[in-house]
Amino acid sequence: MGVELLGWVVAAGRGNTFVARIPGREIKVKILNQGVAKSISNAVARGSEVLIKFRVESLNGGVAKAHDVRVLHSGMSPPTYGSVDPSKPGEFALKSFIALRLPKYQKIIKVQHAILRSLRRFLDGEGFTELLPPVISTVSDPGLRGARRLRTRLYGSTYELVASVTMFKQVAATALGKVYFISRNVREEPPENAATWRHLVEFTQLSVECAGASMEDMMELGERLLCKVCVDVLSEVGDIVREFNPGLRCPTPPFRRITYSEAVRLVRKLGERVPKDGELTQKGEEALSKHFDEPFWVVNYPSRSRSFYFLQDPKNPNFNRDFNLILPLGYGEVMDGGEREYRYERVLAKLKELGEPLERYSWFLEALRIGISPSAGFGVGIERLTRYLLGLKYVWEATPFPKPPGVVGAP
Amino acid sequence: MGVELLGWVVAAGRGNTFVARIPGREIKVKILNQGVAKSISNAVARGSEVLIKFRVESLNGGVAKAHDVRVLHSGMSPPTYGSVDPSKPGEFALKSFIALRLPKYQKIIKVQHAILRSLRRFLDGEGFTELLPPVISTVSDPGLRGARRLRTRLYGSTYELVASVTMFKQVAATALGKVYFISRNVREEPPENAATWRHLVEFTQLSVECAGASMEDMMELGERLLCKVCVDVLSEVGDIVREFNPGLRCPTPPFRRITYSEAVRLVRKLGERVPKDGELTQKGEEALSKHFDEPFWVVNYPSRSRSFYFLQDPKNPNFNRDFNLILPLGYGEVMDGGEREYRYERVLAKLKELGEPLERYSWFLEALRIGISPSAGFGVGIERLTRYLLGLKYVWEATPFPKPPGVVGAP
Repeated sequence: MGVELLGWVVAAGRGNTFVARIPGREIKVKILNQGVAKSISNAVARGSEVLIKFRVESLNGGVAKAHDVRVLHSGMSPPTYGSVDPSKPGEFALKSFIALRLPKYQKIIKVQHAILRSLRRFLDGEGFTELLPPVISTVSDPGLRGARRLRTRLYGSTYELVASVTMFKQVAATALGKVYFISRNVREEPPENAATWRHLVEFTQLSVECAGASMEDMMELGERLLCKVCVDVLSEVGDIVREFNPGLRCPTPPFRRITYSEAVRLVRKLGERVPKDGELTQKGEEALSKHFDEPFWVVNYPSRSRSFYFLQDPKNPNFNRDFNLILPLGYGEVMDGGEREYRYERVLAKLKELGEPLERYSWFLEALRIGISPSAGFGVGIERLTRYLLGLKYVWEATPFPKPPGVVGAP
Repeated sequence: MGVELLGWVVAAGRGNTFVARIPGREIKVKILNQGVAKSISNAVARGSEVLIKFRVESLNGGVAKAHDVRVLHSGMSPPTYGSVDPSKPGEFALKSFIALRLPKYQKIIKVQHAILRSLRRFLDGEGFTELLPPVISTVSDPGLRGARRLRTRLYGSTYELVASVTMFKQVAATALGKVYFISRNVREEPPENAATWRHLVEFTQLSVECAGASMEDMMELGERLLCKVCVDVLSEVGDIVREFNPGLRCPTPPFRRITYSEAVRLVRKLGERVPKDGELTQKGEEALSKHFDEPFWVVNYPSRSRSFYFLQDPKNPNFNRDFNLILPLGYGEVMDGGEREYRYERVLAKLKELGEPLERYSWFLEALRIGISPSAGFGVGIERLTRYLLGLKYVWEATPFPKPPGVVGAP
């Protein structure tokens, strides 16, 4: 009887004992068969990695006695564990399958799983319906602030890789009222965005939309969602969170709200340059984020700088009814959203102004022509949220198979 | 006070009453403002759709009194509701945003949400960790039975759209023991596969892997998973399930197991042609599926016909240590899996035999060279599972934005 285990032998001890890494922890094992112990010992001495399958009666106490040991694999090269360096995004991404085997990254994945569980539970409790997200579409989000949309061919026709599910959310919220997608988005980020430590080519968005809601409704929902996920990870994986980020405090709603115009003035006061067009640069945003020690809202972005699907403020059409939630301490934006333009003529005019090929928007324009609900919503960057809650330096540490900007050849 | 609601006016009644569709149901509303009621009445008479925002004190009783009614949108064309026809996959896919507004498809989405919740809850309870899936990679699954892999360009380099996360699962299970992904997969299916009613270009796989597990372990897990999801949907969304599929019975493990060779003999006995190479055709598989009225396993597929990552049976290398779970009544395959090849030299030899470009597999080969755990796992098609539980005719009815084989231009 007993349990069968798989373990990597990571070090030899005295006599026939070895240190073995089994899923989630390391244990000491004593290998009863003298011959097998000898050959494992030799392999470890050569610097090889050895994978064994064995049976133990009990894992309690100091040393587990390993019965029926079989060597499944004896490594061809010394383990490269420990050589992954997240400050080199290219090398790190190419070796993500090694990072995954380090306890640090295993803990991050466990916390990310708890974050996903918490977000879904919260939204399900609020009456939202989860939908499966498309990854390719005739058209995706044209407003990517310098990032390029990826393309593919399907049956000889051009498709785009989905960079945002906003149009899908608007249509789905019209039908179902309250909806969310957990959507993988892909964008070719400018390579220099690797220097921000918070961009990824491939990332995950929790994308929420609610028919008939105002931007204020969604900000209130977003605040509660952020607080709940913070409380949940501290309760479910608190050991890990406190080890990584001992200073984490759950924020208290309502969060501070400043307008984009106020933000620009503040950034100038902080000594950062703001270009003539009045748009905050990445560095400007970072200075703003570092200025605060609690998450805060920036509302009413200039309409010319944002995606066509945002609703312009009827009282001041130069600005949108939209918002970004900025994390403090330099972590930057984690949530963006707002009220949506839902009127056929307005969307048509905006797309023409952008020079977008209308025939690729035909399904969305048709949906608008029939009529869709006014709605508001937001997207939350799951990797950025994970990075913040764990206090990670680089966002590419917060996903199992990262693709940092500018890197090619990553899995 | 009262609640604010959004509703589509779908019909005019007597006097100033109208039928309005609010999220999830239809209600009768009496519009108190005479002028507004008149203009809505005119619009409805012209065949337009009208979206209104209003306030009601109570939804109980026969007719809700609507205060502060605002017309948000007055449709440009008559509603095209009811004109979606799933027997025409192309037309249906292009109009998926209309299908979503029909109660039938809203109910299907609700059941799919319950299925996703149940699957995650079951696996979390079994100690599995959920990971976020990649959608592009240097390389994906080459063994797609006639389907073509899609490609894209990132920073001038060729990537593939992920058609299966199996290699990622093997690496992740080595690190974390028990893992799953909920992964959107894209494959250019041969257009004629639309005729099977069970293929999609873009579909969702629950992809599970367990280090050190045998195929028997995973089949046992798969049986429990299928039974649990069946019990859960009957308890959580039983009204809908019984409306769609009154005959649904939860299957009882263990399921019947037949080998692939036995399946071939049975198909011949059922009067279906089996080609000389001994591989079952789609029609053969369908005949098999129609022959049974409970889910059943087909095990040990011919190794030449399956993906390189399956482990060959050491006792009979012409066959794999693998399995498919076939649904009865013609619904066909819903789960496929098996034990994985984890030895560097064997995988290398198989990839060379397939003529695959090795440099694009470099990360996976490097992971194998360092050494990965033997593992076993399976993938479950979420849309096929939804189709089966609800007794739907076409798999493209079981996803919010379907892409049936051969269709271009779908959202």
